[in-house]
Amino acid sequence: MTIDTSKSTAILLIHCPDQQGLLALVTEFINTNNGNILYLDQHVDREEKLFYMRVEWDLANFNIPKNKIADYFATLIGQKNQMTFELHFSEEKPRMAIFVSKMSHCLFDLLARYTSGEWNVEIPVIISNHPDMADVARRFDIEYHVFPVTKDNKEELEAQEIALMEKHKIDFIVLARYMQIISDEFITHFPNRIINIHHSFLPAFVGAKPYHAAYKRGVKIIGATSHYVTTELDAGPIIKQEVAHVSHKDMVDDLIAKGRDLEKIVLSKAVNKHIERKILVYNNRTVVFS
Amino acid sequence: MTIDTSKSTAILLIHCPDQQGLLALVTEFINTNNGNILYLDQHVDREEKLFYMRVEWDLANFNIPKNKIADYFATLIGQKNQMTFELHFSEEKPRMAIFVSKMSHCLFDLLARYTSGEWNVEIPVIISNHPDMADVARRFDIEYHVFPVTKDNKEELEAQEIALMEKHKIDFIVLARYMQIISDEFITHFPNRIINIHHSFLPAFVGAKPYHAAYKRGVKIIGATSHYVTTELDAGPIIKQEVAHVSHKDMVDDLIAKGRDLEKIVLSKAVNKHIERKILVYNNRTVVFS
Amino acid sequence: MTIDTSKSTAILLIHCPDQQGLLALVTEFINTNNGNILYLDQHVDREEKLFYMRVEWDLANFNIPKNKIADYFATLIGQKNQMTFELHFSEEKPRMAIFVSKMSHCLFDLLARYTSGEWNVEIPVIISNHPDMADVARRFDIEYHVFPVTKDNKEELEAQEIALMEKHKIDFIVLARYMQIISDEFITHFPNRIINIHHSFLPAFVGAKPYHAAYKRGVKIIGATSHYVTTELDAGPIIKQEVAHVSHKDMVDDLIAKGRDLEKIVLSKAVNKHIERKILVYNNRTVVFS
Amino acid sequence: MTIDTSKSTAILLIHCPDQQGLLALVTEFINTNNGNILYLDQHVDREEKLFYMRVEWDLANFNIPKNKIADYFATLIGQKNQMTFELHFSEEKPRMAIFVSKMSHCLFDLLARYTSGEWNVEIPVIISNHPDMADVARRFDIEYHVFPVTKDNKEELEAQEIALMEKHKIDFIVLARYMQIISDEFITHFPNRIINIHHSFLPAFVGAKPYHAAYKRGVKIIGATSHYVTTELDAGPIIKQEVAHVSHKDMVDDLIAKGRDLEKIVLSKAVNKHIERKILVYNNRTVVFS
Repeated sequence: MTIDTSKSTAILLIHCPDQQGLLALVTEFINTNNGNILYLDQHVDREEKLFYMRVEWDLANFNIPKNKIADYFATLIGQKNQMTFELHFSEEKPRMAIFVSKMSHCLFDLLARYTSGEWNVEIPVIISNHPDMADVARRFDIEYHVFPVTKDNKEELEAQEIALMEKHKIDFIVLARYMQIISDEFITHFPNRIINIHHSFLPAFVGAKPYHAAYKRGVKIIGATSHYVTTELDAGPIIKQEVAHVSHKDMVDDLIAKGRDLEKIVLSKAVNKHIERKILVYNNRTVVFS
Repeated sequence: MTIDTSKSTAILLIHCPDQQGLLALVTEFINTNNGNILYLDQHVDREEKLFYMRVEWDLANFNIPKNKIADYFATLIGQKNQMTFELHFSEEKPRMAIFVSKMSHCLFDLLARYTSGEWNVEIPVIISNHPDMADVARRFDIEYHVFPVTKDNKEELEAQEIALMEKHKIDFIVLARYMQIISDEFITHFPNRIINIHHSFLPAFVGAKPYHAAYKRGVKIIGATSHYVTTELDAGPIIKQEVAHVSHKDMVDDLIAKGRDLEKIVLSKAVNKHIERKILVYNNRTVVFS
Repeated sequence: MTIDTSKSTAILLIHCPDQQGLLALVTEFINTNNGNILYLDQHVDREEKLFYMRVEWDLANFNIPKNKIADYFATLIGQKNQMTFELHFSEEKPRMAIFVSKMSHCLFDLLARYTSGEWNVEIPVIISNHPDMADVARRFDIEYHVFPVTKDNKEELEAQEIALMEKHKIDFIVLARYMQIISDEFITHFPNRIINIHHSFLPAFVGAKPYHAAYKRGVKIIGATSHYVTTELDAGPIIKQEVAHVSHKDMVDDLIAKGRDLEKIVLSKAVNKHIERKILVYNNRTVVFS
Repeated sequence: MTIDTSKSTAILLIHCPDQQGLLALVTEFINTNNGNILYLDQHVDREEKLFYMRVEWDLANFNIPKNKIADYFATLIGQKNQMTFELHFSEEKPRMAIFVSKMSHCLFDLLARYTSGEWNVEIPVIISNHPDMADVARRFDIEYHVFPVTKDNKEELEAQEIALMEKHKIDFIVLARYMQIISDEFITHFPNRIINIHHSFLPAFVGAKPYHAAYKRGVKIIGATSHYVTTELDAGPIIKQEVAHVSHKDMVDDLIAKGRDLEKIVLSKAVNKHIERKILVYNNRTVVFS
């Protein structure tokens, strides 16, 4: 279900060790205080003995003021149950930055969804290591900054990028085919808040030209994976994956073209889930609520 | 298109370096000698400059006797164009052996298709390293032999297996979740004639318990790959791949159950293509005609 | 999650008008009486204002005796909240009958899963309007009865079939490509307990030869739909749907072959969900829990 | 394979009654005159006894001048074999007009692909019955014309639209969610040259609000179909179809959002095939070459 932006709602994302009665505790907290639950989904991982929950409720008649909900919830329920939780409000539009290099396919799809009002998000700034996409940014009236990052200047330029993120109060970053490895230092500023997209293959190929490798190997399926960026390269929590069938008729160029379509679809689906506050991360895995 | 078993047909599978006029040469050979082409598919790999072709024609009025077609074709066309080719006849049912261990899902699907007459194949024998599937073989009235292969007796027992294959005039072998590594010696007896099925993941996992690894990693897609067995483990030419979507709700058992369904579907599709003589292998890749 | 048959569990399926606190009420009932919840999924249909829930709990330390749970639940919670509910126990294997005509593909797949222990079900009897599948039934050691139903004898033979269902204490019926229209009288004996499979197309085709119509129309996708049988032909609640891509290369025979594979997959998935008590029906729609 | 725009090539699309030797005839014509075949695909519909072919060759050393190829081919081969054929040249970029109403999702995707150079096409003009999309057209620097078509003025305004198409030398039209029924008169100006996209369901729903109907029916799959427009509403030759899985958790809004994503993907894939001259239409069906 999409977030109903016509209402003022609160969204609570929780995870903690599983035990009896957790769900009842949380729903009672909301019901008792006159909150009308609009959406509830929970998951218990029986193997890891963990409890995950997402609940969204209407604040119209809720007894606890918005700015005190987190405090009350932590005191009354969270702490004694070792809960880690996030609280969001539908009225607070998340602010997103896009990092891009020279390829436009993901960028266009993100901006089209943004411009058409499909997403409850603000995109104040686009960052690139190349000038090529400036024209696309201009078409959508969004600030575009070029930081020509190299090994040597990376520390300095990333510091400037972080300052720019802070100036624009950026909540999360989307790497829309950004062909630059981000430093661990930068990543730790945005834990589980940088979304990346990369191609995936069955079997996997390492190295510089994966589509060429996939062609050589004669694969029948290609894929794309969207994940949060962690300091281990391309090994962060997976958000979304999709595949497409290919055949011997597909030359390297065809694989790349089909990969491009996959990348933009998968990245936009992952961003959508992030904007709707439907992703919980724990133990390098995601729970993605529907 | 399925093979029309009501007609006596010839099937020619060709690959060779590409050059102008190859297709015309082959079709002319058939047309001139009064063969009616029922199916033709060809593929030119522009990157590798290779020509692949599959053609099937009705032998009813064909001027060249069946037993001389290969000879004539080689002399008149094949040799001077450096063609590698296979010639098959629809009347010659391929003979298939199944190797199985303890799991029945692939075995049942293969036998059900065989018994219902879906496939133009003979299955005279099932081989296993365990007695567990004897009852299934009995239900379908097929010989079942147990060879309890271990590291120590592998050479000896594989020699017995090969003798059994020869006795039954086996053309190709299907590993229906056969959990034993086959020796290079055995494999070289059946080049591109042993079909295997294994699970595949995005990203790939190595080691003993891949479904557990996939669960730990929080993958959103699982897959299965069918391929010809070569002496490099699980790296032979890929025939068919399929995937299924999974989520955080799927525990290890669920992944295994979904994987099982994928495995049986993918293996049967690969076997079907092999029986219909629609697979060409070259450079460790397949061309799978439709 | 598959049902854990190693434990003695209770499964409660509930639907009722939505209101605040329903989930807390039910989970409290279980927790208070010392039941350990193993699985919980709920759904609120905001458009229809309906609440759906499936909960499964371990009976090991549950305070209320098995044979009194339904009574207690109805009295304490169900009635005052206008709940319709079903209570099942994992120890009670549902008993399933298969109706089949001349095609074996679905039948084999159902029996293979049953025989391999994949499903928590009993299949004591197979019924057909033709003798053709007797041999398959024999292979799996299951009773096979032929009722050569025609328009004229339908009333009489269906009465015999119902008697046979009662004798075998059949809980639900699976129509595995049973090519006979079942009377309204028969259907009302098994409300939402007869599962059917039929092909589906985009767009839909009416009439006797849908695959021929699909070929003529040049469709690029074919599908299969599994649903509960109601007195309105092929319009009952949908359980599961799948599709396959086709092209101009697929002749009518190829469409039928691909349709056959879809039918068996979709039917088995629907039957699996039914056996696991994961389907709730209301307003001619299903909620299928994962 | 994508068209290699770095070369000057000719593309021939042929269909005719099937007979022996057609393929050899055509390839000989090209080879004899020193044309290097880059791509060849053919299909024989055995049920309808029809031959379809697409061949593309390099014109670099071709003996026949471009402007005489059609004439020579018709005289030497086409007429005596009752061939219907189209001849295209890679250097002639097809000119495309977009018709749109108020929804931007398909429009953005088409324009992003155009602007990024993904397609060998010119898009000089966008037409709408509403002013809403003028801003999108402006972002991409494309002429935008509003024709507020109603029942009463349709004849007159469509005449103006046709004049505009002629002025811009438009080859084909893409209806990117254009919510106006086009007159038969207009359609006959562009036979198999107007591409439409519409949602599709299993089963199909007729009437004004199909997503509401699909929700009520509890469907598990929704789809989109792209087709050429004929005078029979939504019954023209199908080019491409795709589906997405949905569940009881999807409210009407979710179905619409998922449908939107399908529509834009399917429409762009169909447009791509048209631009690459890979679609042959005959008997209200398409052959779509890969």
